[in-house]
Amino acid sequence: MRVAAAGLALAVLGGPAMAQDTIHETEQADFRVETVATGLEFPWSMAFLPDGDMLVTEREGRLRYIDDGALREAPVEGLPDILVDNQGGLLGLALHPDFEENRWVYFSFAEGTSRANHTALARGRLSEDGSALEGVEPLFRVNFDKQRGYHFGGRILFLDDGTLLLTLGEGAQYFQEAQNLDNHLGTIVRLNDDGSVPFDNPYVSADGAQPEIWSYGHRNVQGIARNPQTGAIWAHEHGPRGGDEINDIRPGLNYGWPAITYGINYNGTPVSDARAAEGMEQPLWYWVPSIAPSGMAFYEGTAFAEWQGDLFVGALAGSMLVRYEVEGDRIISEEELLTERGDRIRDVQSGPDGHIYLLTDDLEGSVLRLDPVIP
Amino acid sequence: MRVAAAGLALAVLGGPAMAQDTIHETEQADFRVETVATGLEFPWSMAFLPDGDMLVTEREGRLRYIDDGALREAPVEGLPDILVDNQGGLLGLALHPDFEENRWVYFSFAEGTSRANHTALARGRLSEDGSALEGVEPLFRVNFDKQRGYHFGGRILFLDDGTLLLTLGEGAQYFQEAQNLDNHLGTIVRLNDDGSVPFDNPYVSADGAQPEIWSYGHRNVQGIARNPQTGAIWAHEHGPRGGDEINDIRPGLNYGWPAITYGINYNGTPVSDARAAEGMEQPLWYWVPSIAPSGMAFYEGTAFAEWQGDLFVGALAGSMLVRYEVEGDRIISEEELLTERGDRIRDVQSGPDGHIYLLTDDLEGSVLRLDPVIP
Repeated sequence: MRVAAAGLALAVLGGPAMAQDTIHETEQADFRVETVATGLEFPWSMAFLPDGDMLVTEREGRLRYIDDGALREAPVEGLPDILVDNQGGLLGLALHPDFEENRWVYFSFAEGTSRANHTALARGRLSEDGSALEGVEPLFRVNFDKQRGYHFGGRILFLDDGTLLLTLGEGAQYFQEAQNLDNHLGTIVRLNDDGSVPFDNPYVSADGAQPEIWSYGHRNVQGIARNPQTGAIWAHEHGPRGGDEINDIRPGLNYGWPAITYGINYNGTPVSDARAAEGMEQPLWYWVPSIAPSGMAFYEGTAFAEWQGDLFVGALAGSMLVRYEVEGDRIISEEELLTERGDRIRDVQSGPDGHIYLLTDDLEGSVLRLDPVIP
Repeated sequence: MRVAAAGLALAVLGGPAMAQDTIHETEQADFRVETVATGLEFPWSMAFLPDGDMLVTEREGRLRYIDDGALREAPVEGLPDILVDNQGGLLGLALHPDFEENRWVYFSFAEGTSRANHTALARGRLSEDGSALEGVEPLFRVNFDKQRGYHFGGRILFLDDGTLLLTLGEGAQYFQEAQNLDNHLGTIVRLNDDGSVPFDNPYVSADGAQPEIWSYGHRNVQGIARNPQTGAIWAHEHGPRGGDEINDIRPGLNYGWPAITYGINYNGTPVSDARAAEGMEQPLWYWVPSIAPSGMAFYEGTAFAEWQGDLFVGALAGSMLVRYEVEGDRIISEEELLTERGDRIRDVQSGPDGHIYLLTDDLEGSVLRLDPVIP
């Protein structure tokens, strides 16, 4: 990626309150990076309201409101008790598909204590002025209390049938539990919008299996999105040292962690001798070394015509945004973007204005927006 | 890729006549690079004889014999007139599947003059002592004389049915001809082993189309191999500036050059506005920027157990060997190897001894072999 010096001049001419970046010249599009909001404490997930405003979760336990491009000082009120500990805090965020009618905001978070905690999902109605969540109700809790604050998963995706998927982790030291259907660790669960179990979940009638489970054998899933070309649901997960994966998520399937993996333990010892096994799914893509993927979105806007249908993945350790050219359910090329900025990217969204939005994972985190530059 | 210093000590202890490299530590295998032979003038293609000896073409117009690991001084005699000009010369090489019975060696080459030339295919029987090709006969000639020495293609692959594929180029300045079935430029052709046209070729009964054509819309194809997992034939081709591709080659299909491409002209102007079009195939993989792929092989040996089924692609401009993890007919990960050596790689083969062989594209080119190092 080339960074053009011309951007400096443009920055001077740029919009009133926004810090502007140089021009990034990439394979298929040139863009500037605009800072929409900053001073967010480890922002984790974002959602676009119908009027163009935004909600952003901060892992430190606050829900923030961006009002016509300006970050409101006061957090949104009404959240339940949230455990802020290591990787735990306020995490995922999604609006109900009928948000305009019902104002339901869904959010995932860590709940409990530093020595006994789990991922939880709740919802509340956003007040008309956006200052509070009202009528907050719990919808789901992982049925296993971890003794440390790692691997919570936490992404929320509504499906076309009105149900939702919530991605989870295996709690790091409980990795064997990702193969145990008796608990929710290391799974993706599917719920109705009121938290009840859909009648057609794959393990709804299975003895000794939790009925919410949609897929299992996951390590820590922090990105999920629907492929608009095919309708398939793609999710990525963190591997150990190496072996981060993108998977095509189908009901009832086993994605193999920790029985199969392309990664090794952080200390260099093998997790498993096997990279493939009967009855376990191979990834659509894997990364060695790890990039620590977080957030993912298929681009569906028109502002970047050449990017339509492409997949964008944020990288924490990798400190970049990765673009994948997607052909049906295959990845056919890879391009690394924003490597020179060094931002840890926590979330990626294709905004309703056709621009790409990013959250940077930082004590002074930001909402960034990629704006096309027409050559 | 990490290069271990321990290799220096091993080099001192190494085999008698072979220059040894340091240990290359990669994702799934550690190896040393042995120089099997050197002093080859732009070696282009290699073939393994049943007794472990090797044949290597030099683009400068010679066929060389490696006899029990030692390069014979005298070239193999009996070749026809070969035009050595720019990218043209003696190019591809393949043994007949029944070589042990019939001793047929197939080779492709540039024929004609600097101002009127084409790719040709011939065969000859290798004498028992390997000193000469006997009974050399022409099998095929591209029916279009180019006025410059570029984009000859030249790889030869025998299929399971005993026919062969010969990859071609579009002659660089004749790129529009890749869409014209009336000539062989920019195609892959399929022939019987005696050069005749197989009755079931896709355009055998089409008016105004050459009956040898198997697929078209190619730019310059310098790598072709059979995917052992699926039996599909994969070929790669050079793009212009960006847009090198790997394609899944099926009979009668149009691979789009120059109507669709992910690349642009060397001078920065667009080749085409389109990357996709109805009736034209999308690649399995593409590279932007270009790596200039040359040679490809699926690894089918046992010496590198973790690499079984993986695809290896040589890179000229990219100066590396690229490994692709292959799952069915999808690429699911990429690893760059040997980047620190800076060799332009012209050909890649999975040897009968289970080792990987490479040719370096140089006035003093070499045959290299990757030898596994067990940690």
